[in-house]
Amino acid sequence: MSLSILEKYSIKPLNQQAMDKAQARLDNLVKPPGSLGELETIAIKLAGISGETYYDTKKRCVIIMASDNGVVAEGVAAAPQIVTYTQTLNFLKGITGVAVLAKEFDTDLIVVDVGINGDLEHPLVVDKKIKKSTGNIAHEPAMTYDEAVKAVLVGVEQAIQAVGEGYKILGAGEMGIGNTTSSSAVLCALTGLAPQLVTGRGAGLKEEAYRHKIEVVRGAIARHNPNQDDPIDVLAKVGGFDIAAMAGIYIGGAHMGVPVVIDGYISMVAALCASRINPLVKEYMLASHASAEPGFAYAASALGIQPCLNLNMRLGEGSGCPLMFAIIDGACVAIREIATFEEADVGEEYLENL
Amino acid sequence: MSLSILEKYSIKPLNQQAMDKAQARLDNLVKPPGSLGELETIAIKLAGISGETYYDTKKRCVIIMASDNGVVAEGVAAAPQIVTYTQTLNFLKGITGVAVLAKEFDTDLIVVDVGINGDLEHPLVVDKKIKKSTGNIAHEPAMTYDEAVKAVLVGVEQAIQAVGEGYKILGAGEMGIGNTTSSSAVLCALTGLAPQLVTGRGAGLKEEAYRHKIEVVRGAIARHNPNQDDPIDVLAKVGGFDIAAMAGIYIGGAHMGVPVVIDGYISMVAALCASRINPLVKEYMLASHASAEPGFAYAASALGIQPCLNLNMRLGEGSGCPLMFAIIDGACVAIREIATFEEADVGEEYLENL
Repeated sequence: MSLSILEKYSIKPLNQQAMDKAQARLDNLVKPPGSLGELETIAIKLAGISGETYYDTKKRCVIIMASDNGVVAEGVAAAPQIVTYTQTLNFLKGITGVAVLAKEFDTDLIVVDVGINGDLEHPLVVDKKIKKSTGNIAHEPAMTYDEAVKAVLVGVEQAIQAVGEGYKILGAGEMGIGNTTSSSAVLCALTGLAPQLVTGRGAGLKEEAYRHKIEVVRGAIARHNPNQDDPIDVLAKVGGFDIAAMAGIYIGGAHMGVPVVIDGYISMVAALCASRINPLVKEYMLASHASAEPGFAYAASALGIQPCLNLNMRLGEGSGCPLMFAIIDGACVAIREIATFEEADVGEEYLENL
Repeated sequence: MSLSILEKYSIKPLNQQAMDKAQARLDNLVKPPGSLGELETIAIKLAGISGETYYDTKKRCVIIMASDNGVVAEGVAAAPQIVTYTQTLNFLKGITGVAVLAKEFDTDLIVVDVGINGDLEHPLVVDKKIKKSTGNIAHEPAMTYDEAVKAVLVGVEQAIQAVGEGYKILGAGEMGIGNTTSSSAVLCALTGLAPQLVTGRGAGLKEEAYRHKIEVVRGAIARHNPNQDDPIDVLAKVGGFDIAAMAGIYIGGAHMGVPVVIDGYISMVAALCASRINPLVKEYMLASHASAEPGFAYAASALGIQPCLNLNMRLGEGSGCPLMFAIIDGACVAIREIATFEEADVGEEYLENL
């Protein structure tokens, strides 16, 4: 399979006419023009995506891509690999961070096994396993080129299916012990940034293991020499099934004309991959929170998108998405329900002075 | 009346034992320790305030202090003074920014007339009018020292009453055309910062009016020479009824043992005033969003508190509070509902590697 297979998932530019109409309505609401800041930006973006001035994001989900990473053999993760398996089941029990936040903010979870190193037999886990864990990028490529395309397609198809089921907005989450290492390798490969800049402590590595993690990232890139201009090659050589499948969520969501919310570091790196596959996909993305993982800011900057929440979170799982859905709810009601100057009995002299 | 009348509203330090207990629970939940960032900080603060590990903030309100400012005669505001009156009624119609967001996030509004330049006859407006508008600080003090104490007490009493009615968390909002000018004057008087640093365009002043606004702030401070060490003197000479009454909300909320959420620029300056009256009050405050008004960051820095939302908003009214209530909901469910390592069947080796 080649990258060109993804070209059939075309993405439309945003609807400028709908955005102009949304902007005009916002400017006519009883408030200083622009004073709702990002809420207005979000409302305009949703109009551009949907073609409608009013968009309702109440039916929403986070799609969680779970997979394992061979690189954990290098001691680059604080948690043992079995935690990927256990937490994937815990999502469905509703007891992890993202699950609890999703319930609070009326968000469904769709949990996909794209490469967990174990046999899950749970009716609610979507089985799209490519294989049990990637290869250890310290010694071998993470996966073949074909497998990378296949993993992206898993995400594309899950997003398409979710929109078909009526979801109006998606979030991209993950579970995969070791995936801050693969994300850092992908980010370095795509941008040329130095591993010591973007590599962080993940769930909480001690100093020695942290320094080794940086060397593993550096070594993986030196060994495999991924092609900066081919995001699939980068994903195949130093990425993960989770990152590739999340990149697919953005592409599938945009193809279906719905917005997709970015969570933390891994989710942002996947978003950057998606935008390298199709630059138009960025217009359908909304960033949620600024992850505390150091590579996040570099990835966000490379993509050219800024988050709204400053919560110093670094949990992953998609945990920032439900919080961002609440902010987006605010944007949706603001454009729909704030009165116009006329309805509010505030005279035109208000606008004239501005 | 003197400042000492406020001393009877004592404020307890946070309950360290309850905070330690909350911290211990958070560290035992199935996630890397600290990985929920500010959600954990908020949960611990709520424990320290309430004495309980689990706090429920679902019954909540924004108290809006509405009043007029004589300084609008100087042309420092983009909107005409009548807008204070009209928007105050519009809050109760549910059609302004804060009203729409409050409804979305299950938040009640308590609207208080503390000095509107007009006769409101609305059963839901709490009539605590001190007088119709402050004096024009370009030529005279905003109010007498007694009036400033009285205005603070209005806020204290409204907060006490709200907590008596069962509200578990309060927000401090305002409506008052011209109040970014009075806020800038108060901020400069309390901190010694230069007016050109902290003064912004408010609702959207044009260049000439903006430069004049800076001169008005500078002139008011030079003329009245407020005592930096007496926040009541500062409020009386260059402040506003709204700012003073909002300062009272923080004091009354803290006195009653509930958290109070700060909105934007005026709300943050009022929070700074409150902390100068009683430094303990700061422990009960939660900042919501980083206002786009330039003085906000200076006021937040002087107070030593940082917001969670980065939304580039500059509407006021208390509009950031309902959005922050949603984030706080996230903190409350996180500490209460995420499973422990044991419950989640994740072994202790997870923690040992950290």
